[in-house]
Amino acid sequence: MAIDTERQKRTMSLLSHSGYDALICSSATEVLLLTGYWPVMAQTVVVFSADGAVTAIVPEDEVGLAKKTSATEIIPYQPATLDTLDSPLSRLREPLRRALKSFSASKASVGIQMEQGLQPASYAVSAVFRPSFAALLSELLPEAKLSGCDELVETMKAVKTTRELEILHTASIVAAAGFQVAEKCIKTGRRENEIAAEIQTAFDTAHAAECLQRSYGYFFCMSGPNSATAAAAYARTRHRVIQEGDLVMIHANTCADGYWTDITRTYCAGTPSRRQEEMRSAIDEARAEALRSVRPGATGSEIDSAARSVMEAAGFGKEFKHATGHGVGFAAANPNARPRIHPLSNDALEEGMTFNLEPAAYFEGYGGMRHCDVIAVTARGAKVITDF
Amino acid sequence: MAIDTERQKRTMSLLSHSGYDALICSSATEVLLLTGYWPVMAQTVVVFSADGAVTAIVPEDEVGLAKKTSATEIIPYQPATLDTLDSPLSRLREPLRRALKSFSASKASVGIQMEQGLQPASYAVSAVFRPSFAALLSELLPEAKLSGCDELVETMKAVKTTRELEILHTASIVAAAGFQVAEKCIKTGRRENEIAAEIQTAFDTAHAAECLQRSYGYFFCMSGPNSATAAAAYARTRHRVIQEGDLVMIHANTCADGYWTDITRTYCAGTPSRRQEEMRSAIDEARAEALRSVRPGATGSEIDSAARSVMEAAGFGKEFKHATGHGVGFAAANPNARPRIHPLSNDALEEGMTFNLEPAAYFEGYGGMRHCDVIAVTARGAKVITDF
Repeated sequence: MAIDTERQKRTMSLLSHSGYDALICSSATEVLLLTGYWPVMAQTVVVFSADGAVTAIVPEDEVGLAKKTSATEIIPYQPATLDTLDSPLSRLREPLRRALKSFSASKASVGIQMEQGLQPASYAVSAVFRPSFAALLSELLPEAKLSGCDELVETMKAVKTTRELEILHTASIVAAAGFQVAEKCIKTGRRENEIAAEIQTAFDTAHAAECLQRSYGYFFCMSGPNSATAAAAYARTRHRVIQEGDLVMIHANTCADGYWTDITRTYCAGTPSRRQEEMRSAIDEARAEALRSVRPGATGSEIDSAARSVMEAAGFGKEFKHATGHGVGFAAANPNARPRIHPLSNDALEEGMTFNLEPAAYFEGYGGMRHCDVIAVTARGAKVITDF
Repeated sequence: MAIDTERQKRTMSLLSHSGYDALICSSATEVLLLTGYWPVMAQTVVVFSADGAVTAIVPEDEVGLAKKTSATEIIPYQPATLDTLDSPLSRLREPLRRALKSFSASKASVGIQMEQGLQPASYAVSAVFRPSFAALLSELLPEAKLSGCDELVETMKAVKTTRELEILHTASIVAAAGFQVAEKCIKTGRRENEIAAEIQTAFDTAHAAECLQRSYGYFFCMSGPNSATAAAAYARTRHRVIQEGDLVMIHANTCADGYWTDITRTYCAGTPSRRQEEMRSAIDEARAEALRSVRPGATGSEIDSAARSVMEAAGFGKEFKHATGHGVGFAAANPNARPRIHPLSNDALEEGMTFNLEPAAYFEGYGGMRHCDVIAVTARGAKVITDF
């Protein structure tokens, strides 16, 4: 696949402004950011140098996939073989040495990831690089200065390129295939896990995914009091039987070749009660106000305040328990991803940024309602990527 | 839930023999090992001291779940709130200081994870602790000696307790619900992703999972030439239409509250050909020979050789491209998990160890056949946990 020159140029420019000679990343999300390839087992290492040269050390089993989504120079390696019981990291040493040749003589300034972060699941298992990886880099680059590039990387992930926006649009279309069956499969008497499985099947068999190498998704169903627990940092489908009058929340994190959505819709089992209608109308209005306030230059706290003041005026202030949103795209749900749509956030919106908008109200013991969309910032304001 | 005293005593004994005053782990799998609780977002830190005191710093949203599967002392914390934009790690500082009080004055020897490792997916996103976590520990324990406990932890995970074996047995029963529909839904003309989704639904709605807090699973379908690619480190379902005469491989990694299975069955679309029957009979015999050679004291290379020599005699030596197995339970698929059933492995089997047996033959461009079971080592030999 042709290289994403927009991303490449932007990265080169940021490296030059920040004084780095190179970034070296091993976390799957940052490999995707720097190469366009999303590792499966997260055992890939990428070296992005300030002159635009990009080398990825890729497990042999993933080379075919890597070539389909990236034009980066690839050094294949075998993390595990029949011929050795060496540790995975020791298998990386020689290919890494090769990839680092151009820096070895210089006193390079190299950015690596130092801070705790959230990574989306790339497979049933995936690698974690612990302090020994930084130690190996220090050994291979004895004269280099290694420092944390975590903030820089967060900034880079915030604004998407044209191609990245296109893939997010595809991700939304595939996710919609799941949500399209939600309304008709939510019925009193059915269990949460049955409903989640039926929606998951519609997503897994969506024709729109045929253009993707990897289309994954997690769909969750939370009903009645369980939907109130969706205020937590994570969702969980249980075996509860839907009751007449329940709020039924369907939450999804889906991924198209490494680019993630964060989507929630809430349904009513039966005719909505007055209380449910009031929640719905407050959430709809909070969403509309937040969308109207989106423009380049607006801050995260302004958008949060636009939504929160509607919820407060409707009497749902303390039931809106979390921030109005956070950056989305390179991860499904990372409250630290930019722009943070949070009461204290000075993050300024820029064209091409993508984030979620998730006004909500949660009543413990009764239920929760949330509407969560993925939004892109354009010169003219908000564009709803998940417009279904 | 009552504490797993068998696991606790064993850990205390290993710490005492290895001279550690404490282990401090943040990876979800090792938190599970040390507490019985499997974190969702992987933002939990556990401090296990040599005297048997165990403290876990748990995100508030996970405290309820943690209490259901662990009797560890819990210090709740909030990784993200409406009141702050502090980084997740800075939110950990004070609770971690509290948990470390008993060590702060001493020149303790503390084991932490240093090496690259594989972690199973615990949620759609999960935390990665990078070098800054070790730096924070050094700051909070300035007189302590921090060293890598990675090998010790691998050893600890190899032998399961009675309770852990029971949960693995439950995991197998739930996984079986998926495989039970496999044979009847594999038909020529259907797509791989349709078949995988139907099996996934049977798993997701299995009644046997109702006793679990979290029952997750990944089912993959690979047919015809795609099944030959299953020799790789990872599986992938595509959109291919099943053809008459295809080998159709169903591979699963499923999890019951953090304990994982690794299971593969291969089916024939239509009447098996002579070649397919030969593959089947070689694999069945390799499996039987390997099972017969399992006993406490046998080495990984002996078991591998038992299977491999059958495959070689049948003419499938070079098509059996990977090791015969590896430890399973705390991860689905980690070739470095003990015992390694690999040609070069001196890992000696012990009662209570669990591993997978996966004799296979892969012909590029044609197809692959694999039969993978989870096995427990007993005093009398092998017990097939996935006996369906």
